[in-house]
Amino acid sequence: MPDTLHTIAVVSKLFSNYFVHEVLQGIEPHLFKGPYEVNYYPTTGRIDIEKDMLKSILYEKRADALISISTPMDEELLQAYKNSGIPVVFIEESCEGGHTVKVDNVKGSYMAVEYLIKKGRKKIGIIAGEFLDKRTNANVIERLIGYRKAIEDYGMQLNEKLVKHVAYYTFEEGRQKMKEFLEEKAGLDAIFCAGGDLVAMGAMEELKDAGIKIPDDISVVGYDDIIVAPYTKPSLTTVKQPLEQLGSEAFELAVKCITREVKMDENRLIILDPKFIVRKSA
Amino acid sequence: MPDTLHTIAVVSKLFSNYFVHEVLQGIEPHLFKGPYEVNYYPTTGRIDIEKDMLKSILYEKRADALISISTPMDEELLQAYKNSGIPVVFIEESCEGGHTVKVDNVKGSYMAVEYLIKKGRKKIGIIAGEFLDKRTNANVIERLIGYRKAIEDYGMQLNEKLVKHVAYYTFEEGRQKMKEFLEEKAGLDAIFCAGGDLVAMGAMEELKDAGIKIPDDISVVGYDDIIVAPYTKPSLTTVKQPLEQLGSEAFELAVKCITREVKMDENRLIILDPKFIVRKSA
Repeated sequence: MPDTLHTIAVVSKLFSNYFVHEVLQGIEPHLFKGPYEVNYYPTTGRIDIEKDMLKSILYEKRADALISISTPMDEELLQAYKNSGIPVVFIEESCEGGHTVKVDNVKGSYMAVEYLIKKGRKKIGIIAGEFLDKRTNANVIERLIGYRKAIEDYGMQLNEKLVKHVAYYTFEEGRQKMKEFLEEKAGLDAIFCAGGDLVAMGAMEELKDAGIKIPDDISVVGYDDIIVAPYTKPSLTTVKQPLEQLGSEAFELAVKCITREVKMDENRLIILDPKFIVRKSA
Repeated sequence: MPDTLHTIAVVSKLFSNYFVHEVLQGIEPHLFKGPYEVNYYPTTGRIDIEKDMLKSILYEKRADALISISTPMDEELLQAYKNSGIPVVFIEESCEGGHTVKVDNVKGSYMAVEYLIKKGRKKIGIIAGEFLDKRTNANVIERLIGYRKAIEDYGMQLNEKLVKHVAYYTFEEGRQKMKEFLEEKAGLDAIFCAGGDLVAMGAMEELKDAGIKIPDDISVVGYDDIIVAPYTKPSLTTVKQPLEQLGSEAFELAVKCITREVKMDENRLIILDPKFIVRKSA
């Protein structure tokens, strides 16, 4: 083997969050398989820092390809990368003129709500994320679209009172929002925690404390399939995002770009399907 | 402020594991506070790749300081860094002639076992990690030392039959090892899962399935204080490692080295204390 060593730069706002952590689990096994090296660059999300860093990687010739996680790039800079023969692969955030690998969030959300409807649930609440930052919260919007689409497709009534938001995706927020639903006597028979499994675990705790049976009285569905989801009481029905696969596909696509198996201007778009995992909570 | 931008390189075998993930959570908030940039370099742990990468960082002048997570460095290379005025801070793995920040694993383990002894427990089993790789498993050895020291200090009998090992630190392994203890009729009244909280959660599941009461019949203690530890049934008593603080202290020390507030040859050693967190499982 060792032909030339190829270096792939990976940029992301931060590397210490759950999403990126899982994506790296799909990237790093490739380092044991071939003459590849990766370097990670946290940009903090500040646009000036982000731009300087992207320029440094380009002009100091630090990489043979770039993977950009949830970080858009302006057209001029993307063109400069292409002119220098450095392919760019976007994860989640697609960008005109670049290759993209993403998960279908509309579908993930739709699957969850459709499942609940088919189980006979009539009043399905959602606890979703907040749009704090339009640049990087496309997934929040997409999951709300999936929720609304399923409700409408099955001829049910949309009700904005059944929609709540969490800012930090925590257990405590899930508990709090569920408490609010109960206090408002919303009359839910299902709750879809699009904000993640921790939020769902908090909601379940609140329901159990209130003596409400899961799933008999209220069904609970999470999002992510975190490592403890099979071990909650009851075990958590949830939407699994193929985050490892997201990292792995992006890495493989970057390699194909380096070897020119995929051409710079093909603008490949790979959309991965989420998976609905039925356990006991719904 | 913004004086010069300073770049700190961070090397680690991988960046997709729990330990490093938590350490990054202590490093990344600093990026919002000053003119600092970090770059991450996964070395895969292969000694040749590791050495090449450390040389590239040095000779291509990619960084003003280096933080090395669980990655030792030979004396010659460390000297070359120092000669170039690039300070090196080691996390966990200390290295002759460098600065080090680490957690006291002997103490963490000792605290857990001492607590169980003081609660009147007489037959305390341990499920620890395996020494797969002597270069990076010092913590496994240290936790066994802490366990043995506490047993001996309190005049109790060491019994190698009460020591089991897990290779991958999983829930399933915890369950399996607990099952073995039960089948062997080991007669435990406490189990210390030095291999981590997931192992402890597996052990608890097995005990509950066998109709054994926690903590009345058998107390269970974990290690790490992962995010769900407060929400297990019963909630998990565990040893919390200050991993964020580990990252934060290493970052701050690196900055002090860059500004020459700390001198190259001071060989600072910062040992952080783990914290024992009492909940319901012990």
